[in-house]
Amino acid sequence: MGKEVPGGYHGKILRVNLSNKSTTDEAIDELFCRRYLGGVGFISYYLWKELKQGVDALAPENMLIFALGPISGLQLPGAARHCVGAKSPMTGGIAKAEVGGFWAAELKRAGYDAIIVEGKADKPVYLWVQDGEASIRDASHLWGKETKETETAVRDELGDNRVQLALIGPGGENKVRYACIMHGLHDAAGRGGLGAVMGSKNLKAVAVRGHKLPRLADRERIKEIRQQLLARVDAIPFPISEFGTGGFEMLWEESVGNLPVRNFRDGLFPEVKQIHAGVIKDTIRVGMEGCFACPIRCKKVVQFEEPYNVDSAYGGPEYETLAALGSNCGINNLKAIVRGNHLCNAYSLDTISTGVTIGFAMECFEKGFLSTKDTDGIELRFGNDEAMLKSIELIARRQGFGNLLAEGTARLAKKIGKGSEAFAMQVKGLETAMHDPRTKTGLGLGYMVTPAGGDHCCNMMDLFVADEKMLKPLNPLGMIDPVPVMDIGPRKVGMFKVMQSSAIIEDSMVTCLIAPFTFQLKADVLTAVTGWDTSIAELLRVAERVLTVARLFNIREGFSAADDVLPERFFQPKTDGVLADKQLDKAKFEKAKSFYYTLMGWDAKGVPLPEKVEELYIE
Amino acid sequence: MGKEVPGGYHGKILRVNLSNKSTTDEAIDELFCRRYLGGVGFISYYLWKELKQGVDALAPENMLIFALGPISGLQLPGAARHCVGAKSPMTGGIAKAEVGGFWAAELKRAGYDAIIVEGKADKPVYLWVQDGEASIRDASHLWGKETKETETAVRDELGDNRVQLALIGPGGENKVRYACIMHGLHDAAGRGGLGAVMGSKNLKAVAVRGHKLPRLADRERIKEIRQQLLARVDAIPFPISEFGTGGFEMLWEESVGNLPVRNFRDGLFPEVKQIHAGVIKDTIRVGMEGCFACPIRCKKVVQFEEPYNVDSAYGGPEYETLAALGSNCGINNLKAIVRGNHLCNAYSLDTISTGVTIGFAMECFEKGFLSTKDTDGIELRFGNDEAMLKSIELIARRQGFGNLLAEGTARLAKKIGKGSEAFAMQVKGLETAMHDPRTKTGLGLGYMVTPAGGDHCCNMMDLFVADEKMLKPLNPLGMIDPVPVMDIGPRKVGMFKVMQSSAIIEDSMVTCLIAPFTFQLKADVLTAVTGWDTSIAELLRVAERVLTVARLFNIREGFSAADDVLPERFFQPKTDGVLADKQLDKAKFEKAKSFYYTLMGWDAKGVPLPEKVEELYIE
Repeated sequence: MGKEVPGGYHGKILRVNLSNKSTTDEAIDELFCRRYLGGVGFISYYLWKELKQGVDALAPENMLIFALGPISGLQLPGAARHCVGAKSPMTGGIAKAEVGGFWAAELKRAGYDAIIVEGKADKPVYLWVQDGEASIRDASHLWGKETKETETAVRDELGDNRVQLALIGPGGENKVRYACIMHGLHDAAGRGGLGAVMGSKNLKAVAVRGHKLPRLADRERIKEIRQQLLARVDAIPFPISEFGTGGFEMLWEESVGNLPVRNFRDGLFPEVKQIHAGVIKDTIRVGMEGCFACPIRCKKVVQFEEPYNVDSAYGGPEYETLAALGSNCGINNLKAIVRGNHLCNAYSLDTISTGVTIGFAMECFEKGFLSTKDTDGIELRFGNDEAMLKSIELIARRQGFGNLLAEGTARLAKKIGKGSEAFAMQVKGLETAMHDPRTKTGLGLGYMVTPAGGDHCCNMMDLFVADEKMLKPLNPLGMIDPVPVMDIGPRKVGMFKVMQSSAIIEDSMVTCLIAPFTFQLKADVLTAVTGWDTSIAELLRVAERVLTVARLFNIREGFSAADDVLPERFFQPKTDGVLADKQLDKAKFEKAKSFYYTLMGWDAKGVPLPEKVEELYIE
Repeated sequence: MGKEVPGGYHGKILRVNLSNKSTTDEAIDELFCRRYLGGVGFISYYLWKELKQGVDALAPENMLIFALGPISGLQLPGAARHCVGAKSPMTGGIAKAEVGGFWAAELKRAGYDAIIVEGKADKPVYLWVQDGEASIRDASHLWGKETKETETAVRDELGDNRVQLALIGPGGENKVRYACIMHGLHDAAGRGGLGAVMGSKNLKAVAVRGHKLPRLADRERIKEIRQQLLARVDAIPFPISEFGTGGFEMLWEESVGNLPVRNFRDGLFPEVKQIHAGVIKDTIRVGMEGCFACPIRCKKVVQFEEPYNVDSAYGGPEYETLAALGSNCGINNLKAIVRGNHLCNAYSLDTISTGVTIGFAMECFEKGFLSTKDTDGIELRFGNDEAMLKSIELIARRQGFGNLLAEGTARLAKKIGKGSEAFAMQVKGLETAMHDPRTKTGLGLGYMVTPAGGDHCCNMMDLFVADEKMLKPLNPLGMIDPVPVMDIGPRKVGMFKVMQSSAIIEDSMVTCLIAPFTFQLKADVLTAVTGWDTSIAELLRVAERVLTVARLFNIREGFSAADDVLPERFFQPKTDGVLADKQLDKAKFEKAKSFYYTLMGWDAKGVPLPEKVEELYIE
């Protein structure tokens, strides 16, 4: 590898130590960039290489990393994303979350490939990064503010309305374990408690603004690829720009049993027809928005004032939020769900973990494991929308019962006991997303083995490999035989590895999973941007490296194969609906896990073999 | 997969049973073609799927398979090749050999993707395939004839000088275990004793002639790729069209210790300067030839009449032959070596196994393990060129001592005993090629694990990964860090797996390893020819499948990890030269083998895991 910085990179990261108020530029070289690409690749590497074993996730020593990829922020559809990571306060392993919007594009133009924040400020601060200059500024006056007030105040203070902010509200400040980091007001780096890490550092916001892209290896070719992508955007067969996620397909999700209903316990939720994005479009939606340079406007903008205020600035709920705060809590009041979304974005709370934690508490309440004495008088029953909204307020401020809810499902279950762990819907401490392995087995394997825990993004959707037509995008990888949705044999494991790798590639480059990049286009755009003679095969190898580094990090933090397990509930049938007589077979999942380890070059205990680590040049 | 036959294939193989004189057309479908591609892929599959366990390689039940790939015979540089395979009379496992020339192009135009020959004719026959018609014809009058006489006679008989023949001479007829199948008079499907299998079936020749290519998916794109390849041919940096193989680099081979000298025992052979292709060019060479449609004219044509006759029709010796019949036998008489090449081609003997067997016998003779009583009076000493030539004659006819030599090194060593196995230079029963693992460790691993035994083609050359510039073709696969030539750690094993896969891809498509196909061009040409949306990643997956099927076949035939070993001699230093104080470390090679199994998804004993077999859709 040459010494020259490859196209698409600045070859420079910003290292910030809040304890001693230092900001330092640090060079990264081409070999490192090619080995890890960026995004989750960079994050996994730095956590593994630098973070001392056993550091508390909320201690100053934890590292909070914002990492772009070579594609992040370029003038391309689906390229507005970056990845944020840290040691997770939820799991104690790696937390990583991708996010879109406009922040990545500004940081790219501000001259950095990544920002690593360490230490803890002695009082609230925010970081201001502009065109290669970084400063740490007082944020005492912003502490306690919701995200919208914060964004407005910082932009006013800096005198530039185009400053983009990664920021936290009270949820992050109060170190709610599943606090997220908002980017703008409706794009969340959601999972794993990154907002709590930010709060623990007394870091209110990272404000960025820039004007200069790095060198790009072949601008003409990038333009061609842009045209190809735009043509493919026009051909997207589902109405993503009309409904975003959570449209009419939610009716189908319910009909096949995938929709989580009352803490994943039940199957039937006919009221789904009142809470999907088709209804949103016809009632409260005022528009659709997109990310930087992307014509796919997949984000709902909603607004209403009665019975609660919902500010259009906070965007509208995605499928995950509609299900987590809705059906999963037995709630059929669309406006309450949307208000819940507004609150989570204002307070910087992950809507998935919030909804699953509340749903779990509701089930405990109904079972008598919790009473109104525990819940500050709240009748925490499924379907009680006011209880859900009240809970969010308490969580964000860690007030009363909220202080317990703020710890997340796993810790709550441990405290409650009485067998509640069996229906605590989490893996490694991270709440599962709104997809039920009882309807898609490969996703279940993903929940088990994905380094971050119960995550659906670095995972597979089994439907996409279940028929010839859906499978077409994977044909170039030699995946030419469809695998049934409910198969969890070796063929599904093989598919899973490819799909998981695909997600890791997206999260390293960083690109959006909704944007119609084919595998070949990912390789093509990487070549055009960096100048490397690369291919799909190299991307798969990078994914294997990144997943292995993340695994090594988790193992050093004490994880083992025993942590790669699903909640017991998934091995039970649902109470009603099409899955009332179906359940997963635990032995088959254990076998699948074991074969996944084999395919990864890990031993029977899930520990990467030293030879494999060496072969992948993890050093 | 659709039902339509993909471009580049006829979707049809010819099944011939010589016992009952039947010839049958058999359909192959797209799914099979995409899973196995052709060439060694088809051969491995059919042997595994159809051959009954434990069949003697020389029994009628063995299958002799000639398989084209989708690229074979197209109007492209390096596309004139096909693969021939059977259960090997040398190893008892899979034998496979690739060969160029003009035969593949004719069979392609004759309407078949492959020919499978089973059974045994009650008297000598030849097979005549022309434009979709096949017939079995009497060859009694041809039996005993050398290849040139046979080719002439068959062409005369069929009245067409453009008929191409795969054929055997007396070596094959007499079932010399390492008899090869000649294609024309100077292109050999050399290794593993395929000519003996052909002889055991009383099959003298397979004559082919045709006029119609199959449908090609995108002819314009193929033309473009042809232009790219032609440009790359012009840019080949080494003088392949001037010397073929075995040019001045042989001097370097000797200087670094790679050149086998006196049965791989010694290092120094200063007379190498008398036997390399530079000398051939200046003395006996009358021209250069190439294969069908290929501008790389890499094949020497030589001619002289004194002191022996060498017919230009038989071509000239490649590096392997110059070393095997030359330095490996201590012979410095170039004309004798070239005469040996002529004889091997006339008799259909593999020059590598011939030379190594004779070299081994010479060492045994010098050690006193053999005497002139055993050798029919021949003073079988290193450097005795007349003894070498006489031995070839005896071998081909299995006369006297030749009958023993015709069994090959492994069987000869077993018969002689007295510790001679330690310097019997063979793996699994197949003689190692003219490359010494003491100078290239990855190749040693290849000798150990390659299904066919001591083969250098389905293998790696360590030099090609040892510096950044040489490594460039592998960059697109994420191989971006050079690995030292003598490293045999996990990184070399990873490189080996990629290089071995590359060879298997070539042998399945089928393309020539000298032609300047990049990985991307292989994927591109496959797409253009077949219409498949494929990529390098799919090609690597096919290679893994083919290697695993071949392994399964070998294991069924009784092979185990204990057979994946190098001859003892490689763990000893050479007697002189630069390797006089160097030897390989056996423990390191065992570790490398074990990690190779891991990377392949095989268990610690080298048996493919059932899950891996299923995941690869081997069924």
